[in-house]
Amino acid sequence: MEPRIHVITLGVADLERALAFYRELGLESPGVIGTQYTGDEATPSGRAVMFQLRDGLTLALYGREDLAKDANVPVSPPTTGHFSIGHLVGSRADVDEVLRRAEAAGATLTDEPHERAWGIYSGYFRDLDGHLWEIIWNLRA
Amino acid sequence: MEPRIHVITLGVADLERALAFYRELGLESPGVIGTQYTGDEATPSGRAVMFQLRDGLTLALYGREDLAKDANVPVSPPTTGHFSIGHLVGSRADVDEVLRRAEAAGATLTDEPHERAWGIYSGYFRDLDGHLWEIIWNLRA
Repeated sequence: MEPRIHVITLGVADLERALAFYRELGLESPGVIGTQYTGDEATPSGRAVMFQLRDGLTLALYGREDLAKDANVPVSPPTTGHFSIGHLVGSRADVDEVLRRAEAAGATLTDEPHERAWGIYSGYFRDLDGHLWEIIWNLRA
Repeated sequence: MEPRIHVITLGVADLERALAFYRELGLESPGVIGTQYTGDEATPSGRAVMFQLRDGLTLALYGREDLAKDANVPVSPPTTGHFSIGHLVGSRADVDEVLRRAEAAGATLTDEPHERAWGIYSGYFRDLDGHLWEIIWNLRA
């Protein structure tokens, strides 16, 4: 397997709500696509949101039930802590600012941001569907 | 927030086992780092594995309990279907080959790979901790 990841897809309860949240955070997307693929009981719909990030990476939002159908796995309730997305910023103040902005958009901060022993200052938020983001300033960078 | 993601961290039950699995898939890592940060009941350890991917992205493995402590969220049991990682390859045969290799390394295929209405041929595997990977060939590329 080539050492590349092209897409990170987050399962969400409400595509429009999640789209609005990530737009509030500053990410840009043309909006919901794939609406022509309506799906049915067994087939997932194609309704999804794509945020084109830098360096060829795409952050996708996809309905939780559609993702479960597409992957042929049971739908499981939203939970937190299985994985996290790390986002680096340039200063301590930037960490605080991104967290503040996420909270204003409806995210939940899990803790006050603080320094970690391995040389970072960071804080986590949970997005509207429980997905964890860690906003990080590397003290050694 | 800048449109960048720098790290994807997967919570795992057993760091060495997950490291061996992803090495089997062809990813390279110096191994477990951060062992000097031992942690305690309240503080996460720093033990982690980093795979440096292309374009500045890092795939990290971190103990599930450490991730929960670090993010200050409850530990939740492994589940599948909250998110997926998408990995593009260059042909239908490459999809089959990566899935076969993942299965040989201990992953579970959730279904036979197949064409999806939106113009891709893909299949999913669950890694040893339930994290979903979709291996994708874009028929239109």
